[in-house]
Amino acid sequence: MSLDQIELPASEDVFNAAQNIAGMVHQTPLLSSRQLNELTGANLWFKCEHLQKVGAFKARGAANALSLLPEGVDEVATHSSGNHGAALAWAAAERGIPCTVVIPENAPKAKRIAVKGYGAKIVTSGPSLGDRESTLAKVLEETGAHEVPSYDDKRIIAGQGTVALEVLQQSREQGIAPDVIVAPVGGGGLLAGVGLTISALAPDILVIGAEPAAADDAHRSLRGGVHITTQQPNTIADGLRTTLGGRNYAVIERTVRDIVTVSEAGIVNAMRLLWTRTKQLVEPSAAVGFAAVIEHNARFRNKNVVVVLTGGNMDLDKVGPMLSSEEN
Amino acid sequence: MSLDQIELPASEDVFNAAQNIAGMVHQTPLLSSRQLNELTGANLWFKCEHLQKVGAFKARGAANALSLLPEGVDEVATHSSGNHGAALAWAAAERGIPCTVVIPENAPKAKRIAVKGYGAKIVTSGPSLGDRESTLAKVLEETGAHEVPSYDDKRIIAGQGTVALEVLQQSREQGIAPDVIVAPVGGGGLLAGVGLTISALAPDILVIGAEPAAADDAHRSLRGGVHITTQQPNTIADGLRTTLGGRNYAVIERTVRDIVTVSEAGIVNAMRLLWTRTKQLVEPSAAVGFAAVIEHNARFRNKNVVVVLTGGNMDLDKVGPMLSSEEN
Repeated sequence: MSLDQIELPASEDVFNAAQNIAGMVHQTPLLSSRQLNELTGANLWFKCEHLQKVGAFKARGAANALSLLPEGVDEVATHSSGNHGAALAWAAAERGIPCTVVIPENAPKAKRIAVKGYGAKIVTSGPSLGDRESTLAKVLEETGAHEVPSYDDKRIIAGQGTVALEVLQQSREQGIAPDVIVAPVGGGGLLAGVGLTISALAPDILVIGAEPAAADDAHRSLRGGVHITTQQPNTIADGLRTTLGGRNYAVIERTVRDIVTVSEAGIVNAMRLLWTRTKQLVEPSAAVGFAAVIEHNARFRNKNVVVVLTGGNMDLDKVGPMLSSEEN
Repeated sequence: MSLDQIELPASEDVFNAAQNIAGMVHQTPLLSSRQLNELTGANLWFKCEHLQKVGAFKARGAANALSLLPEGVDEVATHSSGNHGAALAWAAAERGIPCTVVIPENAPKAKRIAVKGYGAKIVTSGPSLGDRESTLAKVLEETGAHEVPSYDDKRIIAGQGTVALEVLQQSREQGIAPDVIVAPVGGGGLLAGVGLTISALAPDILVIGAEPAAADDAHRSLRGGVHITTQQPNTIADGLRTTLGGRNYAVIERTVRDIVTVSEAGIVNAMRLLWTRTKQLVEPSAAVGFAAVIEHNARFRNKNVVVVLTGGNMDLDKVGPMLSSEEN
């Protein structure tokens, strides 16, 4: 599909999204830590989207999409191995309409439990993107449900962009002047939304994406100038295994300065530091932005840096044992 | 020692402590969770002392004690298997005086690392109270340091009482009318401080202690009316294995309505719920108050309940594996 065939979101869509979802989602706090500032030599503010409804920023996009459903739609569906599934299930329940989520068999158990908890119907598929899409196609055909994709969607990108709107508002209120905003990138819903918003309202702030080196399609796409749509991801950051969407790439190419990559050990280390120093339970994907501040420290040192913590949902029995106490 | 020989703190000591430690410690937030309210049928506010300096309310007592040192004291020492050691090390470092902490060999590694991180000298002792006390006696003799006990101390009780002062102030500001405050009890520094403060300023609020059934000396002392000073604790809540202090018992007997006990499974379940629903990394001892709300639900249902989350320091590789994802 070429760019002129797909509809890209504009900054107005983000402003509208903020109104559409007001009252449904939380304004999440900005958190700082003297210890982590000392460790990184930067002034860090963490935007706490793990404290968002459903424990992830995905509630924003889903709530916005549900507020913008086409006339006559009374049922929704998606495929998701992660937080988007729970977010759509939650948003549909809030509006009282049925929801089906196709979940691959290898998804984290905690994320499946969340979808079930919000009352959505679960259909299990094979692990590949092809498996997920063909299973969803069948669901759409059988139910007549409307698909709400997890990232390559104008409504979703606009909804996730409200994170950046809030950061700008809170920065003003708290007298913070951010130099940089760092957000993880998987499918690119959040990063595109942040880029779109910041480039429109505060173009002097750099927007930097952070991606696991073991799932670096967005990094290679942006650096090479060609949208890469295949990869074999092998990262603990389960929320970032997807490839960058078409709309997402188009927006990111225009609004995001760079995408840097981080190692798997760097992600675990960043997560351990966030857990032990801030006592915030963030999932592996959510630690990727902070990992970038550590592993690419020269780019962030002596700067005011907002790092988006994206979510806090995981299988604790899998993640906990990785975080053995460090010895000084 | 009989009661008339020990000096008990008064509510004025708490008011003074608040002034002594202002600027050194954080005003920690009150946090609520719709999911946990629905689960318990109560309106809960969690007082987030795991977000306090050194990750525990113990910073308050230590900071207060350091502000009230006798003339001429220029070095402090204590024995502690937990957060008091880190708190004293931190408070001493803030004031630039040397500190020695006697740590039993079986203490959590994370707590030892914290003490070291704040620059205190560590002396390792055997695990029993006798071992700890005799090792500390030797340290005091050799260094001439002044002992700051971890709970059976007027300055410490008054410092911990500032938690309750803050809760009252925040409740007023936020339009909350608490019916009950629940706090865990080990040595009783926190519970005595809370009882003292609430009985003086808001005697219509019930103060309830929560204790592991596997370390229930305070429960038995209060119910039986006789201070029990021996027990064989066997609980995951490592911060609550100590027996109730003399001053602590005297204050608690006068100001605390009841102390209820919770099971080990209940503590793990409460900790899992706090981690997964609020994304707050609280240590096992800190989950004991919430465990009480669940296991003694009839006493809390339909009430406005403030639950003190006491700390967030633990060995993640030991605690993490206990928290396998629940299946609904």
